[in-house]
Amino acid sequence: MSLQEIFATRATRMKASEIRELLKLLDQPDIISFAGGIPDPDLFPKAAFQDAFAEALNGPMAAQGLQYSTSEGHKPLRVWIAAQMQAIGIPATPDNILITSGSQQALDYLGKLFLSPGDTALVGWPTYLGALGAFNAYEPRYDKLDPLSNRSGADYTAAAKDAGGAAKFAYLSVDFANPTGATVSRAARERVIDLAEEMEIAVIEDAAYQSLRFDGDPIPPILALEAARKGGDLEACRTIYCGSFSKTLSPGLRVGWVCAAMPVISQLVLMKQAADLHSATLNQIAISSVAEQHFESHIDTIRSAYRARRDAMLAALEAHMPKGVSWTKPEGGMFIWVTLPDTLDGAELLKQSLESERVAFVPGHAFFADGSGRNTLRLSYSTSTEDKIAEGIERLGQLISRALNV
Amino acid sequence: MSLQEIFATRATRMKASEIRELLKLLDQPDIISFAGGIPDPDLFPKAAFQDAFAEALNGPMAAQGLQYSTSEGHKPLRVWIAAQMQAIGIPATPDNILITSGSQQALDYLGKLFLSPGDTALVGWPTYLGALGAFNAYEPRYDKLDPLSNRSGADYTAAAKDAGGAAKFAYLSVDFANPTGATVSRAARERVIDLAEEMEIAVIEDAAYQSLRFDGDPIPPILALEAARKGGDLEACRTIYCGSFSKTLSPGLRVGWVCAAMPVISQLVLMKQAADLHSATLNQIAISSVAEQHFESHIDTIRSAYRARRDAMLAALEAHMPKGVSWTKPEGGMFIWVTLPDTLDGAELLKQSLESERVAFVPGHAFFADGSGRNTLRLSYSTSTEDKIAEGIERLGQLISRALNV
Repeated sequence: MSLQEIFATRATRMKASEIRELLKLLDQPDIISFAGGIPDPDLFPKAAFQDAFAEALNGPMAAQGLQYSTSEGHKPLRVWIAAQMQAIGIPATPDNILITSGSQQALDYLGKLFLSPGDTALVGWPTYLGALGAFNAYEPRYDKLDPLSNRSGADYTAAAKDAGGAAKFAYLSVDFANPTGATVSRAARERVIDLAEEMEIAVIEDAAYQSLRFDGDPIPPILALEAARKGGDLEACRTIYCGSFSKTLSPGLRVGWVCAAMPVISQLVLMKQAADLHSATLNQIAISSVAEQHFESHIDTIRSAYRARRDAMLAALEAHMPKGVSWTKPEGGMFIWVTLPDTLDGAELLKQSLESERVAFVPGHAFFADGSGRNTLRLSYSTSTEDKIAEGIERLGQLISRALNV
Repeated sequence: MSLQEIFATRATRMKASEIRELLKLLDQPDIISFAGGIPDPDLFPKAAFQDAFAEALNGPMAAQGLQYSTSEGHKPLRVWIAAQMQAIGIPATPDNILITSGSQQALDYLGKLFLSPGDTALVGWPTYLGALGAFNAYEPRYDKLDPLSNRSGADYTAAAKDAGGAAKFAYLSVDFANPTGATVSRAARERVIDLAEEMEIAVIEDAAYQSLRFDGDPIPPILALEAARKGGDLEACRTIYCGSFSKTLSPGLRVGWVCAAMPVISQLVLMKQAADLHSATLNQIAISSVAEQHFESHIDTIRSAYRARRDAMLAALEAHMPKGVSWTKPEGGMFIWVTLPDTLDGAELLKQSLESERVAFVPGHAFFADGSGRNTLRLSYSTSTEDKIAEGIERLGQLISRALNV
C-alpha cells in the first residue's frame, strides 16, 4: 500500500472546492471581482479592536486571555449574545449559548452530531457551499428541502429510508442567504417547523447574515417562531440557531455561536472539548468588548455601505442585462443571484469573462447538492466600489448579450 | 421520540471527562492543586503579546489580521515553524506545515481522517486523555502500543482484524508525556517506525512538550528518525508530527501545527476548510511575531521556572513518600507520575485528600484506555510555587502513609 493510499483513507469525502481555486485568481489587480462574498476589510472596526486587544492584554484579564478556558466560551460574551437573542424573540439564557470558531465550526459539529453515512440532510437547492462541505465529511445524502411544495414529512422520511438511512435535520440559511440573497418567508419558516415536528428531526437555522438587513421588516428567526408555539420554552425547541460575528465585526477572529436547547448545547460542548478544547480566549474577550460598546453603531455603518453597493449592482443589472436574464433583489447581505437562459453555462461564461472582460463571479452550480443550476451565477457586491460595480456589470452584460446573440 | 433522544444521536461517543469535573474544584482558594497541568499564567510573555497585537492591528496588517485567510495558515508562521523543524532534524518546508487550533485539533482531524467505527488505534497505556477524547468521536477500539515488547506488527494487525476493523495508526506522546512525564527512548522510537512500516500504518507523534526539556540530551523526533532512514525525504515518511505553542507561548490563542508529508497536509487542509475554514488570522500573525523575536529567550525563562518546581517536587516526594510508592523523574514538561501499592485507589485517595488535606491531583486510571491503573496518580508542578509544592507533597505523603498504615 502506497503512502498516498494510506493517507487517502477518507479522500473520497473531501474535494477541493472550486471557489477556493477561483479565489486564487483574485490577486490579479485588474480583475473586477464579484466572486468573494467576504466582508470589506475597510469596514472592519479596527480602532475598536485596537482598544479591545490592548485592554485585554494590559489589565488583569491578560493572564485569562492567554490561558486555556472553558469549552462553552467566555461568559460575558455568552451573556451579550443571549440578550441579542432575546431581542429577536428567542428566549435564551447564557446556558443556551456555545461559542464556536465561526458558524462554520457549528455546521461541522452538527454534521458530526447527527449524521452517519447514508443518512439524509434536507437542504435548500441551491444552498451554502460551506454547509455541504462540512456535512460531506460525514457522508450523508441530500434531499431537496422545499417547504412550500406538496411533499409531506412522511414523503421525506420514506425517501431517506429508501436510501438506506434516516433524515436527520433540515438545514436552511434564512436571511439574504449565500448564495441567492433570498430570504425564507415566514410561511416557509412555519412550514419547516411543521415538517420537523412531523419527522421528529432537528432544524439547523443558519443566520450568518441576519444583522445585515437594509430594507423591509425582519422576519422572526425559526427558533423564535418555534419558541412562540411552545409558550416561550426554548428547552422544548428542536431548532438550532447558528450565529456569527464574521459578517459584522471580523471573520479573522473566528467567533460564532450556537443557540439551542440545553441538551444540544451540552452535547456540542463535549464535542468541542474533544475537538479543539475551546475557541481562542483572547478573541472572545475582545469581541465581547467591541460588541458591547460598538455593535449597533458599527452595524449601521456597514449596512449603509452594503446597501449603496447593492443598489448600484441592481441598477447596473437593470441597465445592462439582456432580456431573458433575471436576478434576485436581496433585502440585505452580500449576494445577488442571477439566472441566465438555459442555453448558457455559468462555468463557461466565467472562463470567457476572465479572459475578455476581467470580471469574476462564482458559477452557481457548485451550490447545488446535485450539481444542477448550470445556468446560474452568484454575484457579490460586498468588496467593490459603486464605480467598479457599474463598470463590471456593464462588461458582464455585454458578454452575456454577445453569448445570447442579442 | 423525545427531544433528548433526537439530540443524543451520538451521545454514546462522548462523556464528560473527570478532569473537567475536577477542575471545577480548583477555584477553591485553600486547595493546593497539582491537578491542572496547564502553563503558569504568570509566565506568559504578556509584554511581547501586547506589542505583537498592537503592531498587527495598527499597521497595514490590520485588515489582513481581521479577515478570512487560507486554511493552511499564515505563511510567515509556517516559514518559522519549518525552520524550527529543520533545527530538530525534520527536513520540512512551509508546504509541510498546517496551522491548527492547538494540537488538540490536529488529533481530532487525524481521528476523522483515519478512523471508522471499529478500527484500531494503537496508544500508550496510559496516554494523553485528550487524544482518547478526540479519537473516541470516531468510535475506534484501542490496543496497547508497547514497542519494546515481543508483539510484532502482524500480531497487532491480526488483533485489529479479529476486532472487526483495521489498525490505522500508532499514537504516542514522545517527550515528558502527559500524564507520565516519561520520554520514549530512541530504541522505542525506532521500533515504532519498524512496526508502522510492517503494518503499513501512520504514526502520530504528539510533541506538545518537546521544547520544555530541562536536563539530558534531546532524542530526535520520530519524524526525524524516519526521514533519516529515507535519505532526508520527508515525502516518503508516514509519521505525522503534531506541535503546539500552548505549552510555550500561550494556550489561549489556540495555535498549533501539523508537520507531515504533503499528501497528509493536503488532506488535512481540505478537512480544516470544511470544519472551521482556518485558525484565527490575527492570532497567527501575533504568534509569528512573538516566536520570531522571543521564542528562545522565553523558553529559557519557563524552563528555569519549571525545572525548579520539578526539583522541589522530586525532593519532597523523596522526603515524604512511604516505602512502596514510586514515581517518574521527568527530564522536562509538567508532570510526575506516581505509582502506589496495588491496595490503594487513586480516585478514593483524591476524595480523602480533598477533604482532609486540601490537596488535588488527577487519579491515573482516567488515562488508561481500558480503565486500569487505579493505583496511579498524575501530579503537575507547573502552576505551584516551590513552597506550596513542598507543603502539598508533605500532606499527601502523610495521607498515603496513613492509608498504608505505615
